[in-house]
Amino acid sequence: MEISALLTSAGINIGLCLLFLSLYSVLRKQPGNVNVYFGRRLAQEHSRLQDPFTLERLVPSPTWIVKAWQFTEDEILQAAGLDAVVFLRILVFSIRIFSIAAFVCAFGVLPVNYFGQEMRHKHIPSEPLDVFTIANVKDGSRWLWVHCLALYIITCSACILLYYEYKRISRMRLAHITKSPPNPSHFSVLVRAIPKSKNEQFGDIIRNFFVNYHGSSYLSHQMIYRSGKVQLIMSNAEKVYKKFVRLKLTAFDQNGKPSIYRCGLCGGKPNNFHLYRNEFEFDSKKTDCTSSDIISEQKDCSAAFVFFKTRYAAIVASQVLQSSNPMLWVTNLAPEPNDVYWSNLWIPYRQLWIRRILTLVASVVFMFVFLIPVTFVQGLTHLDQLQQLFPFFKGIFKKPLVIKVVSGYLPSVILLLFFYTVPPMMMLFSAVEGPISHSGRKKSACCKVLYFTIWNVFFVNVLSGSVINQLNAISRPKDIPSQLAEAVPKQATFFITYVLTSGWASLCSEIMQVFSLTYNFVTKYILRCKDDPDSIPSFPYHTEVPKVLLFGLLGFTCSILAPLILPFLLIYFCLGYVVYRNQILNVYCSKYETVGRIWPIVHNTTVFSLLLTQIIAIGVFGIKHSSVALAFTILLLIFTILFSEYCRQRFYPIFRSFSAQDLIDMDREDEQSGKMEEIHQQLLTAYCQFSPMKATSNFCSDISTNGEASGEITSKD
Amino acid sequence: MEISALLTSAGINIGLCLLFLSLYSVLRKQPGNVNVYFGRRLAQEHSRLQDPFTLERLVPSPTWIVKAWQFTEDEILQAAGLDAVVFLRILVFSIRIFSIAAFVCAFGVLPVNYFGQEMRHKHIPSEPLDVFTIANVKDGSRWLWVHCLALYIITCSACILLYYEYKRISRMRLAHITKSPPNPSHFSVLVRAIPKSKNEQFGDIIRNFFVNYHGSSYLSHQMIYRSGKVQLIMSNAEKVYKKFVRLKLTAFDQNGKPSIYRCGLCGGKPNNFHLYRNEFEFDSKKTDCTSSDIISEQKDCSAAFVFFKTRYAAIVASQVLQSSNPMLWVTNLAPEPNDVYWSNLWIPYRQLWIRRILTLVASVVFMFVFLIPVTFVQGLTHLDQLQQLFPFFKGIFKKPLVIKVVSGYLPSVILLLFFYTVPPMMMLFSAVEGPISHSGRKKSACCKVLYFTIWNVFFVNVLSGSVINQLNAISRPKDIPSQLAEAVPKQATFFITYVLTSGWASLCSEIMQVFSLTYNFVTKYILRCKDDPDSIPSFPYHTEVPKVLLFGLLGFTCSILAPLILPFLLIYFCLGYVVYRNQILNVYCSKYETVGRIWPIVHNTTVFSLLLTQIIAIGVFGIKHSSVALAFTILLLIFTILFSEYCRQRFYPIFRSFSAQDLIDMDREDEQSGKMEEIHQQLLTAYCQFSPMKATSNFCSDISTNGEASGEITSKD
Repeated sequence: MEISALLTSAGINIGLCLLFLSLYSVLRKQPGNVNVYFGRRLAQEHSRLQDPFTLERLVPSPTWIVKAWQFTEDEILQAAGLDAVVFLRILVFSIRIFSIAAFVCAFGVLPVNYFGQEMRHKHIPSEPLDVFTIANVKDGSRWLWVHCLALYIITCSACILLYYEYKRISRMRLAHITKSPPNPSHFSVLVRAIPKSKNEQFGDIIRNFFVNYHGSSYLSHQMIYRSGKVQLIMSNAEKVYKKFVRLKLTAFDQNGKPSIYRCGLCGGKPNNFHLYRNEFEFDSKKTDCTSSDIISEQKDCSAAFVFFKTRYAAIVASQVLQSSNPMLWVTNLAPEPNDVYWSNLWIPYRQLWIRRILTLVASVVFMFVFLIPVTFVQGLTHLDQLQQLFPFFKGIFKKPLVIKVVSGYLPSVILLLFFYTVPPMMMLFSAVEGPISHSGRKKSACCKVLYFTIWNVFFVNVLSGSVINQLNAISRPKDIPSQLAEAVPKQATFFITYVLTSGWASLCSEIMQVFSLTYNFVTKYILRCKDDPDSIPSFPYHTEVPKVLLFGLLGFTCSILAPLILPFLLIYFCLGYVVYRNQILNVYCSKYETVGRIWPIVHNTTVFSLLLTQIIAIGVFGIKHSSVALAFTILLLIFTILFSEYCRQRFYPIFRSFSAQDLIDMDREDEQSGKMEEIHQQLLTAYCQFSPMKATSNFCSDISTNGEASGEITSKD
Repeated sequence: MEISALLTSAGINIGLCLLFLSLYSVLRKQPGNVNVYFGRRLAQEHSRLQDPFTLERLVPSPTWIVKAWQFTEDEILQAAGLDAVVFLRILVFSIRIFSIAAFVCAFGVLPVNYFGQEMRHKHIPSEPLDVFTIANVKDGSRWLWVHCLALYIITCSACILLYYEYKRISRMRLAHITKSPPNPSHFSVLVRAIPKSKNEQFGDIIRNFFVNYHGSSYLSHQMIYRSGKVQLIMSNAEKVYKKFVRLKLTAFDQNGKPSIYRCGLCGGKPNNFHLYRNEFEFDSKKTDCTSSDIISEQKDCSAAFVFFKTRYAAIVASQVLQSSNPMLWVTNLAPEPNDVYWSNLWIPYRQLWIRRILTLVASVVFMFVFLIPVTFVQGLTHLDQLQQLFPFFKGIFKKPLVIKVVSGYLPSVILLLFFYTVPPMMMLFSAVEGPISHSGRKKSACCKVLYFTIWNVFFVNVLSGSVINQLNAISRPKDIPSQLAEAVPKQATFFITYVLTSGWASLCSEIMQVFSLTYNFVTKYILRCKDDPDSIPSFPYHTEVPKVLLFGLLGFTCSILAPLILPFLLIYFCLGYVVYRNQILNVYCSKYETVGRIWPIVHNTTVFSLLLTQIIAIGVFGIKHSSVALAFTILLLIFTILFSEYCRQRFYPIFRSFSAQDLIDMDREDEQSGKMEEIHQQLLTAYCQFSPMKATSNFCSDISTNGEASGEITSKD
């Protein structure tokens, strides 16, 4: 691939990005799309502005970028919670480190690569990309110390930045825990695997156990019921009722006249809807978590929430082994009320370990089955092979534009489309695994998607790209450094185009919200339903975090080998920073808060990227016979491992648990201010198994009342 | 190697074993050796019988075997603690599983191997050993299902036995914890990394912290002092004083006359000794843990023992994260008073992680440097190579007896001698690692020795034995099953001789106590010192557990491939059972108790052995083109992994911690019986940094008063 082909690809992408962003700036001004682009704000203010039509609505404008930029971190923290801030810190970190890397590589590595061999340089646009990679440096060149130095600067800056980010985020986490209003999850423990008894009900068994062993701090408990048929019918009925209400509101406008464009599927007399509505309202009033009617119809299962009088007592009960049989009386700190994954709580505890193994196996199998389309896509980048395979393509492939598009653009798009199937699959696996919270499920899916992406985008492309049709590359760990060292510079072109297509395009698709825009269009203008206020999505950490981390990995590994990737990456991260800020502020509703628990994953992945970069560098220096640079890189590798281990010791426990000191201080404060009684009262109704909708909207309004996320919704700004 | 060579080797070993055992039965009757062979009993009864000389003392007799056999498990538990019982359970388990394996293999696998190929069988003694291995079975033979079935029977029996052993030992552990007298370690927490303050002393900081956050349960604390020069001088002085006293008692017999044979190095007037003695007695009275004179001269370090009022409070404090900085206020449950590794406690906590990494690296390096003698030893088993290397050996190697001795006996002996350097080295590494207890150090050393032994005896012999001088076998994990499958049957001969020499000989050396016998002889008859009653060794778990587990591994892996190893192994385990029972009852003093914490290591290693056996079997079935057997073995592998994971879930937490239920019950019992006050009083003086001797002997006498280990010491039985 030549520079000109790369520029063509970049040109296409920049054009597409500008087009999409302009389109977005127009679409967001349309009142019909307000629930697509301002979902969070809608949920917050429960109102909608009906602007009159002006011509301004059709003119693209970049004001949204300015708006997104204006918010301070504190405002985002108040508006969208700590998780959102932590996510944005990933982007800030990436922008910082890759600015440094780009600076170092532009003035150090790039000239050395370009003038690495005595050759006559062509006009730069028709220069092949390989001239800018380390492949162009002569074997045994004395200039390889520049690469080694650049690696040192990048690694040390990354470690310093990582350390301060970890420190900053752990401080923010602690501040968030201590300063936020009392959280029922801090007082509650989820108890599973309660032993059965013939004489006693589960409720009595739990009360006896906790009164006996935690008598001074035990407050109350709440059984968890297995969602039986009754629950299924109830929730279905509720859904149908809501749909009816929405249809009714749509169909019978203020004037009570049936709308002509209403979908014909649900025809019927207006009175029917009224009838249904009243019945279901009557029913839905009963659907309360304390209603005995429903509970008596449910099967109780061997799990319960136990509430304690203080936070400290709860954490003690959750961390100490309760029974001498570790498979009984298993305790965990409860998730937040909105975060509880109710349908997983009835899973018998003794099933969990086998579910975990099964999902692990399933994920690994999925990871390897996925190889097939990836290998096919890989084939597309080797035009000569494709021509041999399909001789009738030969004519088409002679046109230079086609060659540029096919080799520079198409493979990534196909790969991208395939990748859209991965996150739902991994979410499914993670749900089967049996986590007790939505956030736990998302975190688990995030890790799975991350491993998957790194494996299938980076390793498979690198390994099978160089030794095509030879998938046993994994089985020789000793050769991996040199193999990577040979393959990564060769695949640099693919990674650059991957950043251009997958990276930039995914940001455009993220800001355009293509899926929900289409869905909104269909429901609103074809089915003519009213908006469902409960359908605001929460931020998809499980897809976005792996994406950003993958680009970080590509950036680190390619930095000193093929520095041309860095400007494109920097554009990606900067654009991403603006786009995600906008999305977090306007679109997504944070239904629960993990208080930054995603950061250790980010930290570890970044350290892994650094180590991988160093291993590849070791391979390269080995191939290029530069033993001094090799020795220094091994030193750097050891230093990085030590740094990682230190951070694990210093920060990781903070993200896994709460400290006694903080909890006791918080308990004391609440007791002294007399708030404790009130908290205990609230606790008893905080976890409500049979009205998830209510709880969700409560929390959203909580967050909105906490955070005065300044700025009114105006659908035209 | 032929059967006759094997029988020669077995003959030599049986002869040697009988000789050593007879020698032992004579030596143990000599009053001079009573402190070598009855150390534990001596410590227990503080007296010694002076038998008159009889001829019976010179006649070998097997009565000690009967004696060792007579004790029940409960008696051993009372006499030597749970750790000893757990160790004996390893042998019981091995005897059981290898009896089953031997039965299955003798009637199933062995005939199939022997008649595996259509050939004319020679007279059995001159038959090569290969005829009895799986190498003799034809490729694609239909009889391979016998091997697969045998593997199934062995694996399933092993899993069932393992499960019941784990269950039994965890029950014994729980019973031991709840029923043994109050243990100060249950009430104490070791706090490290106490933050410094300019205004306050460490003592005040600790008191303030624990009164503030654990006020209701905090009892007291005890600072740990860094052993400075004063401590060094004091302990040296004490040692010298003790030596002097012993010399004096030896030199000046009841009559006060100087003995003629007394060593001339420490000549001097009798009065001098008296003088010294009084002075040091005066000094040693001061050496008390509460003496303020000494403490004021020590540097205090940022660690302390904190005592709590209840066991439950202590375990809570040890398990909950104390401070929001995980590198401060680090808490661990304290070890038993005699188990405390005082000289490690002053190590700053922030050093520990780096020490751990360094020792890991050092152990791995040591593991690989050790390859050199092993490879050399391996060369000795290949006579032809040795002849090429040293042509002048050619003449000697023509004599058949020499060949048999060299190929069947010498290699193992050399290897054995080299292996004697490993445990001290690993103990050194484990001490540098910074464990807080002697038992922790021993456990860590045990794991290191175990990995070392398995790697250097099994893998290196197998891999470099087949692909000699080719050490890159590790770097191809995919080929390992087939490589092992090829190599293990070939190396079976070596493993059989290894069991004969290393196994049997190590038991003989264990019962003879060669080192301490020699040491005793030198000190008693040449230096003419009195016995040092404090020098009773504790059981060397870190050498004996890996040894027994290694033989288990050899047994499992060779069982279906080369079943001839099984009878020799069974003899080893049976002899070992008697020998170790005898040693535990008579020789070793259990100074501390880990309450069976070694068992998870044993369990995991055995499961690893099973998995390895299955992997090798998969390789073998692959080579022999028996796809059905291969598929069934993969099923078995999956089943074994699931079994292992289940056991980890079900039992492992019990060995890592205590349960709240048990601790609270124990606390209540003590409170109701009014013992708590007494326990609190004892707590304050339980941990004594500056008189280790006293503490040790106290505990030994504690154990002896607890356990009425029935039977008087008679040096002639």
